[in-house]
Amino acid sequence: MTTSLKPLLNPQSVAIIGASSAPERIGGRPLHYMLKHGFKGAIYPVNPRRDRVQGLPAYPTIADVPEKVDCAIIAVPAKDVVDTMRACVSAGVKSAVLFSSGFAEAGHDGATAQAEVASIAREGRLRLLGPNCLGVINSDHNWFGTFANGPAESRPATGGSVGIVSQSGAYGSHIYISAQARRIGVRYWVTTGNEADIDVAEMIDFYAHDPEVRVIMAYVEGVKDGPRMRRALADARSARKPVIIMKVGGSAIGAKAAATHTASVVGRDSIYDAVFRQYGAYRAQTTQEMVDVAYACQFGRYPKGRRTCLQSISGGAGVQMADVAEDTGLRVPPLPDSLQAKIKALIPQASPLNPVDFTANAVNDPEIMPRNLDYTLSSDLFDGHVVYLTSVPGSPFTRVSCLDAFRRIREAHPDAVIVMSMLVADEVIADYEALGLPCFSDPAVAVRVMATLADFQEHFERPAANADLAAAGEEMPDAPKDIISEYGAKRILAACGLTIPQELFVSYGSAARDAAGRFPRPVALKIASPDIPHKTEMGGVLLNVEGVDAISDGVDTLLARARTAVPDARIEGVLISEMAPAGVEVIVGMTHDKLFGPVVMVGLGGVFVEVLKDVSFRLAPVGLAEAHRMISELRGAPILNGARGAAPVNREALALAISRLSVFADKNAGLIESIDINPLIVSPTDAIAVDGLIVPSTSPAIASVAHKEDEQD
Amino acid sequence: MTTSLKPLLNPQSVAIIGASSAPERIGGRPLHYMLKHGFKGAIYPVNPRRDRVQGLPAYPTIADVPEKVDCAIIAVPAKDVVDTMRACVSAGVKSAVLFSSGFAEAGHDGATAQAEVASIAREGRLRLLGPNCLGVINSDHNWFGTFANGPAESRPATGGSVGIVSQSGAYGSHIYISAQARRIGVRYWVTTGNEADIDVAEMIDFYAHDPEVRVIMAYVEGVKDGPRMRRALADARSARKPVIIMKVGGSAIGAKAAATHTASVVGRDSIYDAVFRQYGAYRAQTTQEMVDVAYACQFGRYPKGRRTCLQSISGGAGVQMADVAEDTGLRVPPLPDSLQAKIKALIPQASPLNPVDFTANAVNDPEIMPRNLDYTLSSDLFDGHVVYLTSVPGSPFTRVSCLDAFRRIREAHPDAVIVMSMLVADEVIADYEALGLPCFSDPAVAVRVMATLADFQEHFERPAANADLAAAGEEMPDAPKDIISEYGAKRILAACGLTIPQELFVSYGSAARDAAGRFPRPVALKIASPDIPHKTEMGGVLLNVEGVDAISDGVDTLLARARTAVPDARIEGVLISEMAPAGVEVIVGMTHDKLFGPVVMVGLGGVFVEVLKDVSFRLAPVGLAEAHRMISELRGAPILNGARGAAPVNREALALAISRLSVFADKNAGLIESIDINPLIVSPTDAIAVDGLIVPSTSPAIASVAHKEDEQD
Repeated sequence: MTTSLKPLLNPQSVAIIGASSAPERIGGRPLHYMLKHGFKGAIYPVNPRRDRVQGLPAYPTIADVPEKVDCAIIAVPAKDVVDTMRACVSAGVKSAVLFSSGFAEAGHDGATAQAEVASIAREGRLRLLGPNCLGVINSDHNWFGTFANGPAESRPATGGSVGIVSQSGAYGSHIYISAQARRIGVRYWVTTGNEADIDVAEMIDFYAHDPEVRVIMAYVEGVKDGPRMRRALADARSARKPVIIMKVGGSAIGAKAAATHTASVVGRDSIYDAVFRQYGAYRAQTTQEMVDVAYACQFGRYPKGRRTCLQSISGGAGVQMADVAEDTGLRVPPLPDSLQAKIKALIPQASPLNPVDFTANAVNDPEIMPRNLDYTLSSDLFDGHVVYLTSVPGSPFTRVSCLDAFRRIREAHPDAVIVMSMLVADEVIADYEALGLPCFSDPAVAVRVMATLADFQEHFERPAANADLAAAGEEMPDAPKDIISEYGAKRILAACGLTIPQELFVSYGSAARDAAGRFPRPVALKIASPDIPHKTEMGGVLLNVEGVDAISDGVDTLLARARTAVPDARIEGVLISEMAPAGVEVIVGMTHDKLFGPVVMVGLGGVFVEVLKDVSFRLAPVGLAEAHRMISELRGAPILNGARGAAPVNREALALAISRLSVFADKNAGLIESIDINPLIVSPTDAIAVDGLIVPSTSPAIASVAHKEDEQD
Repeated sequence: MTTSLKPLLNPQSVAIIGASSAPERIGGRPLHYMLKHGFKGAIYPVNPRRDRVQGLPAYPTIADVPEKVDCAIIAVPAKDVVDTMRACVSAGVKSAVLFSSGFAEAGHDGATAQAEVASIAREGRLRLLGPNCLGVINSDHNWFGTFANGPAESRPATGGSVGIVSQSGAYGSHIYISAQARRIGVRYWVTTGNEADIDVAEMIDFYAHDPEVRVIMAYVEGVKDGPRMRRALADARSARKPVIIMKVGGSAIGAKAAATHTASVVGRDSIYDAVFRQYGAYRAQTTQEMVDVAYACQFGRYPKGRRTCLQSISGGAGVQMADVAEDTGLRVPPLPDSLQAKIKALIPQASPLNPVDFTANAVNDPEIMPRNLDYTLSSDLFDGHVVYLTSVPGSPFTRVSCLDAFRRIREAHPDAVIVMSMLVADEVIADYEALGLPCFSDPAVAVRVMATLADFQEHFERPAANADLAAAGEEMPDAPKDIISEYGAKRILAACGLTIPQELFVSYGSAARDAAGRFPRPVALKIASPDIPHKTEMGGVLLNVEGVDAISDGVDTLLARARTAVPDARIEGVLISEMAPAGVEVIVGMTHDKLFGPVVMVGLGGVFVEVLKDVSFRLAPVGLAEAHRMISELRGAPILNGARGAAPVNREALALAISRLSVFADKNAGLIESIDINPLIVSPTDAIAVDGLIVPSTSPAIASVAHKEDEQD
């Protein structure tokens, strides 16, 4: 897959079908920009009505071009696209950029035409970008297969390490221009449009494997191939490349707009959140945020932990930075007394606690600043530094000395992760960037980005979500073919390795009498019928029943109630279950997502799930560590630590239940619609599935989904 | 108060004590900048060692200056400040800017010196800014009473309407430079430093009353005078001036740093949040955000509601904007069919639902865009428009026509609230700003700011928090002088107008027997003793007791337990209370905040308060509308609507309880430490205070706090 994109991303020869002599026209712009910027390969304009186009010899058809081109830019009306594509395939063209619109985005006929185009490409082994896209840029080879003015006018310096992919052309341009204004080195820029062939996931995958790319930015409206996106994100993480994603369409209105705008399948937003979290991608809410994070990442330095030294020329800014640090989970440990004393000796006015307020005195004397920072940089107490200098590095009085101080600091600490905040002109910033020091005007943003860098490092270091699976899929039972009773569901859960209560199944009251002796403690009685999935509503559950007579009577009562309430129900009998010990009610479940396959869920019972929607998702399967991360994400998690005087519950048992359920769901991907364990009672010792509901898939044909993170093409 | 600041903010004559001939020195800079920018008043350098300073005649002492100056800049060492201040008072100086450091921020001796300086100023009727401050700028009079290079070098155009106040000098400069880079017209800039006299609240108050100021920006580390800040925010709101505040020190580390940095009393962060919310101030988390909001506010147009039309040249950006709109509570109603048809007829490629994707076609033809926007602007269906144009307005092909289109749009709709998003050069933006169209590069930020403008409009329109008080303070009972029993506390709450259960007080079991007949329903029994505030811990509560015998026995049991558990306790007897009807457990309370006085609180019982810290605060007193706002802010508020099949509870009764408690707390400000009503059972019909605890203030000398919003000096 990866290699087949090279003719598109780095072509040695290109044809422009529909090439125009007018540089401002869509068919004229790619040629104009390639000539202007100096494309390094061969260019063949194709235009049957002209001998020369923008000074280059033109060819009547693609068949007349004297070599097999790597990439054809197709800028012809929609009605001519099918013929043009056929001609390209015949001429051995390896890839094409299809600008033309009027396909899937334009309705049913367009979708049919797009399917034909896709089929021509697939059969002709031609990799296709578009249709309805703004094209591609490779800034290092001056390859401008685009008619987007903004990006093409403002080409960045070569040597960039950032790959951008956007489903939206216009917004892709926006991101390119914003990134470049921020001095982000964009190497590749690809807009995927309608994604008849190449989609955003394949581009992320390409960037994950391309040695020139170190940072990936993606603008996504809807993912078409969930498993491919999953693999791409997993590969990027393995390659230690940060993925910064903006996924729009999260709101109801937004999702509707996205559906009219593209032909994408828009998955539920919380599932996307879970996927990005699972694979350590950063989900940006605004372009500002996206650009801030990508900018910092391109320096390639990530703190090994969250211990952060905040150094500020202003006490006020130091306070602000400390607030943000706490908010983002950075640690700001106070300096030890010995270090404080050293700094005080160096700068008597300093407030050296952490944040260190080094005052203007430190900056006015170029000897002081390096020594001050050397104390904390050498101390081994911090993983990262954020230094706030306001406008001082740009002042005519201190510009030279301040830069010199930081040059010495960088020489002494070549690998230190230092993020700067300063309010100065771009040319001053460039000097600091050359020292590997990212600069932000807003100190709050500088701290926030440091936390994000630390997050990325944690994601890079963390084993895959499925690395420590609690059980192998082969050991798991099969999914039921039909809807089954609670008793049957719990037998399956037990076979998965979950703990269920001691229970017995009886079909009439006197059998209960015989069985009752085996339950010295109170029991729950529940009607068992595949036709009564929601038992409580019809009075089919009795709790805390104790003693032989009461149990026997209770069984009779439930059988009678069920026959009255649902006369046609297949009634299997009554389930007698030992009441679970006191604990926290947890809901563990699984649902089949059309895009990504089986998704596991955990939430706390009561108001947490129902009122606060406090749940955590992951794609199955997950190991114990990832299950623990899911639990920690719950706002109600403190309950598990023993809120209101209770003992802490057994989180390990809860994580195990989640993991085992996820392996079962994964093994039976496509065969199960959903599973509810509600409640799972988590006590200080156990996690007991008190109730269980397994709903088999009504469409068992759903394709099984590939899951292994390490799987690659 | 307001008028007394005029000599400082708009002096006709200034003296510079410690004036230096060297323009780069602290004593030289103010003179340098006033000469450079052309200060409109008289300048008198004071320097005993020179005849002339920077070309102006110098005077040996302030007494030698030939007129009584409005403002003296004092740039002398800390040790000379007291004498200088005395000389200024003798010379009739009306105000002073005190740059010198070495006062309260430097420890105990400095604090003593500062108190002396403050006392000299107060007695001499000299208004003082500082010490340890960076001074003041009034850009319209070229008054540069500052040694801050950054702001003074980059003075903005005149005619600005934004007033900035900052406790931090360095960060105040940062905000000034950031604001100016964003083309915000800064009229006043004041840094208050140690606030020996003028504080941040007084400056907000000044801006609230100054007709030249329309937008207020404040950077706050800690408020010294809570009631004054309260009045200032109330006055700004009454004057319909948005206040954009950055309050730092919210984190534990940050608060510590703030305390070492200033001599401020840092109140608890949640109280600050409540105060800002109560008075409609916008609390910014970053400088970017602060600047974005202030920039938009200076255009002075606020949408009358939240109905927003999103117009976008890019479908992708439209989706993103819709997401943000939903997230920020803007409404994005779909266009009616008739309007959709009109737009489709005008732009066949458009997707006119809302967001309206008008496509590049609308912008390429200057006739289309005005008609397209006219449809929705004229429709009366929308309160505001956000229009995303990416880089098109900056393109050489469309720059003129696009601007012309918006000029016509503005002529047709002079009052329309339109926020633009475009990615173009500053000089292009200036053209749109001249049409009253704020421009943001990030469409997500544009939408977010539109929501903030709508918030401000709501705040401006909303009556004061105490406008519809549920009771007047005079009708309220007095606070107890000493800690009292639950029975006594509930009697007071009943006198406040809260509902309490039917209850009776007995001192021995046989009295209970006589009383029991009056309780046909189950009762709660609770030990009553001023020495046992926490009854449950010692087994002093029995619930759901029913019948004459059980009640009588229960009373005996409790009396015996209390005598055993707390032998010295004054035991008053046992309280027999009818059990409250089923309802939602709510906690309503009040606490005395050292800075702001009595604060009322509401939260839901159970996990909401204890685990999720889901509470809402306001300064007392609050009326019904504000109490309802408090309730709505709770994350668990859906519970009150009838979660899990329950009937909705009586929110009106809950709001009434909050309001009445707040009036009681306000009337007895300083006399009550805290009140807990836990629980208040809110049922579909009532809100019943089932338990009550009132803790009188241990220091009854706490000054009563002024509260009336309309009160002014």
